[in-house]
Amino acid sequence: MSQNPYAQNLDRNPANHQPLTPLTLLERAAQVFPDHPAVIHGNTRYTYRAFWQRARRLASALARHGIGKGDTVSVMLSNTPAMLEAHFGVPMTKAVLHSINTRLDAAVIAFQLDHAEARVVIVDREFSAVMKEALARAKAQPLVIDYDDPDYPADAPYPKGERIGSQDYEAFVASGDPEFAWAMPDDEWDAISLNYTSGTTGNPKGVVYHHRGAALMAYSNTIHAGLGRHPVYLWTLPMFHCNGWCFPWTLALQAGTHVCLRWVRAKAMYDAIADHGVTHLCGAPVVMATLINAEETERRAFAQTVTFSTAAAPPPESVLAAMAEAGFSVTHLYGLTETYGPAVVNEWKTAWDGLEGAAKATRKARQGVRYAALEGLAVLDPQTMTPVPADGETMGEVMFRGNIVMKGYLKNKAATDEAFAGGWFHSGDLGVMHPDGYIQLKDRSKDIIISGGENISSIEVEDALYKHPAIAACGVVARADEKWGETPVAFVELKPGRQASAEEIIAHCRNHLAAFKCPRHVFFVEIPKTSTGKIQKFRLREMARTL
Amino acid sequence: MSQNPYAQNLDRNPANHQPLTPLTLLERAAQVFPDHPAVIHGNTRYTYRAFWQRARRLASALARHGIGKGDTVSVMLSNTPAMLEAHFGVPMTKAVLHSINTRLDAAVIAFQLDHAEARVVIVDREFSAVMKEALARAKAQPLVIDYDDPDYPADAPYPKGERIGSQDYEAFVASGDPEFAWAMPDDEWDAISLNYTSGTTGNPKGVVYHHRGAALMAYSNTIHAGLGRHPVYLWTLPMFHCNGWCFPWTLALQAGTHVCLRWVRAKAMYDAIADHGVTHLCGAPVVMATLINAEETERRAFAQTVTFSTAAAPPPESVLAAMAEAGFSVTHLYGLTETYGPAVVNEWKTAWDGLEGAAKATRKARQGVRYAALEGLAVLDPQTMTPVPADGETMGEVMFRGNIVMKGYLKNKAATDEAFAGGWFHSGDLGVMHPDGYIQLKDRSKDIIISGGENISSIEVEDALYKHPAIAACGVVARADEKWGETPVAFVELKPGRQASAEEIIAHCRNHLAAFKCPRHVFFVEIPKTSTGKIQKFRLREMARTL
Repeated sequence: MSQNPYAQNLDRNPANHQPLTPLTLLERAAQVFPDHPAVIHGNTRYTYRAFWQRARRLASALARHGIGKGDTVSVMLSNTPAMLEAHFGVPMTKAVLHSINTRLDAAVIAFQLDHAEARVVIVDREFSAVMKEALARAKAQPLVIDYDDPDYPADAPYPKGERIGSQDYEAFVASGDPEFAWAMPDDEWDAISLNYTSGTTGNPKGVVYHHRGAALMAYSNTIHAGLGRHPVYLWTLPMFHCNGWCFPWTLALQAGTHVCLRWVRAKAMYDAIADHGVTHLCGAPVVMATLINAEETERRAFAQTVTFSTAAAPPPESVLAAMAEAGFSVTHLYGLTETYGPAVVNEWKTAWDGLEGAAKATRKARQGVRYAALEGLAVLDPQTMTPVPADGETMGEVMFRGNIVMKGYLKNKAATDEAFAGGWFHSGDLGVMHPDGYIQLKDRSKDIIISGGENISSIEVEDALYKHPAIAACGVVARADEKWGETPVAFVELKPGRQASAEEIIAHCRNHLAAFKCPRHVFFVEIPKTSTGKIQKFRLREMARTL
Repeated sequence: MSQNPYAQNLDRNPANHQPLTPLTLLERAAQVFPDHPAVIHGNTRYTYRAFWQRARRLASALARHGIGKGDTVSVMLSNTPAMLEAHFGVPMTKAVLHSINTRLDAAVIAFQLDHAEARVVIVDREFSAVMKEALARAKAQPLVIDYDDPDYPADAPYPKGERIGSQDYEAFVASGDPEFAWAMPDDEWDAISLNYTSGTTGNPKGVVYHHRGAALMAYSNTIHAGLGRHPVYLWTLPMFHCNGWCFPWTLALQAGTHVCLRWVRAKAMYDAIADHGVTHLCGAPVVMATLINAEETERRAFAQTVTFSTAAAPPPESVLAAMAEAGFSVTHLYGLTETYGPAVVNEWKTAWDGLEGAAKATRKARQGVRYAALEGLAVLDPQTMTPVPADGETMGEVMFRGNIVMKGYLKNKAATDEAFAGGWFHSGDLGVMHPDGYIQLKDRSKDIIISGGENISSIEVEDALYKHPAIAACGVVARADEKWGETPVAFVELKPGRQASAEEIIAHCRNHLAAFKCPRHVFFVEIPKTSTGKIQKFRLREMARTL
């Protein structure tokens, strides 16, 4: 048998093989469309030429500080130009961007800084108080850079905090070289970013993305969100959340305009849509609620249809109708931090537009099919790793396989191995496969509550509750909420002879948890348990629905 | 110094790393849009479900014949369903698709079959005579399968030839398993196709593409041709030419409809556009000429704007105007067989629409900027491998670098090494870099005329000739000259019913060019073109020697 001729002398070389990375997409946009607006923020405007130069200056300044391959640059930033610049400037040095959820408390931030071995922290002055406390707790001693946003809104609900860093962001950027010889990654498998999940047990896990996945998400988001040439994208989704579903990188592919937004408020959104011609935005259901419940005085007229991509719970028909009425077309996505954000799309068929009532609603309620850049999506029996019947009824675990699945969890081989057991990423979500190949979520095996787009671990809330001296047993579950999607509610069983009020217990939680994680309601009940003493969460969910 | 934590226990595994390949794009289209029309050909219609099943049947039948990794399946097919099926069915077996230019003679075909070590040949009965002769000459003894197109047009200019194979294509496909367990490539670097260039000297070179490049071309073509959901694509570009610029694979990404076309004739094109709602097509300038010179009786009205992507010479302003008038929007691309077809796009800016005359024409004449999936495009001095000044004047060699550059030339290490010398693919095309980063071709290196020590770009002389209202086509080549070394001579084809003298044409050139660049002689001929509409310069050179 002759040797395979296609395997002889046809090897990779720099001419025919380059690492996939979103960095070359920005380079191209800056070269081809240097005068096109890349970033709009308050009164600030950056063209693609300026954006590219600022990212290179940031990279240069970081490199001069010794930042390079394997280093972590942590940022605690709102949806501002600095956050966009970090998405390119940090990986240009071969370092890794670690984005911190801006709602976290000091203890969790300190854990992340230490675990990530942060060498630099860039912090918006909105968050300087909590960061100061986190730095005091952490062992890591990063260079701290204050971002003093010149466009901090005059009507801000929170004033700027004090400066806590040794450097000012603008001065730091200005010190860099706009012609910095930025580096391609050595390998497309190299890490580009780090995002911590709010794990259900123990410490948060650090999800690592690579350049390859970020570039493929850019292509795939462009296809599924329908981004044509020069989209205008409003930043309602936090960029700390799965790197804003990779849209900071995605927009570069079509040379789109980023419209920054510090706080998701109705008037600011409508103003941006009307003034800047926004074509696309993403967000949790709470963002839709804010738009459709806006006061008349907050609204503005606009001519374009705006594509709104949402994830988490499927939007109710009434919300979709109100969104359409307000000028928005809604696309429903699903994914996890481990899948770079959305990796599943409810591909809507025009033929379904004509369906009535329940027939349409059942199709809207499904999470859908795989992203183009995801090679496999399945509902498997986690014991046998075989597909459940595609009958829309048999439950299994939703599993992912492909190039937009994370590298793994940082410094956590056990969790990584467990997540990838059997050659599939185990989402922990339970779902069914419909006969037409669309998946639908049925439950979360790990009791995550999604409130305002943020994951809340019920176990973490329960842990806080258990610190209260009067509490004997408790269970926290999600309750549907029009505004937030879901909110946590607590069921509590007091120790014999002890007393506590709901207000007192919520106040107790606030001492231990970020505010958004605290239960909205506390009910005093006898906690239903199995014969082996396990709390019956499904019973609590039933009670939450009826109470 | 601590170890890089991002390089520990974060390795590739089947859950987070899969080979990039266009095969998964078709799988997805068939799963999500099974009832959408994938292929239209005469009276034949295949949905995506049927297309996917036929490709799997073909793969299954090939596999039963022993076809697998490292094998070559050669096809000599028009733009028919069989050709589309081969683009998926062959790589599903891990074999390589070798597409033969249908206009080649038996000697060249025999060379290719032997060089490629063809194990199977699928041949359309339109080409059975020449293939029979080629097989008689070749040492290779492939399985020969006749494709007997049931939609062979009744008004065919050529009758079907005899059957020469041992199998019939439809029976072969029918013998396969529609549920065949097709194989992903072992590695995205594995070969997917083989296309021979029509080398001007010596034997043709076999350009090898890989799965990675084919998948990235699917994304990049989608971006640059502006393919939205469910495009309708008319097959005017031969699929044997750079795999139809990779559009057989590209269409799967947006679940588009392929409209097949055996011969590029005006009436059939207008009928397809009007009857099937064609949104996109590609082709050489000769296809545009066919459209805009169509008789009234051949034309049909249509409402949509059709995107026409063309390559080779930049279209003259008069052609663009006539195309716009006829309902087409023209995009100008550039590339080579070695770059999977187009890898450069003249990204047109809306601001340029308002330019007048020459200012607009100079921008239209440029080849442009890199495709999103091409990481590098440069004009380099081939001696020093440094960029020429971006002044729009200094000539250098156009070079490519990136993931849509071929693996190399099959069984031709010397040519591969030469093509990739210095880490760039050397195109052999001479061009300039404009200050705004757009490249413009000036000539093939072998088409440069050196007269009295001065370089004369034949393209520049041709541009001047095309400004003459009577000239339909022209080509300028060097002729040996005792005094000057070389002098330019022009071959000119006049428009029907127009007249012009050689003296008049030379005088016209003197109004547009320096005297030394003007043709010394003008010959009136029918310009010889390749099957893809490219002017055959080597033929003109032969004529120049003998005239």
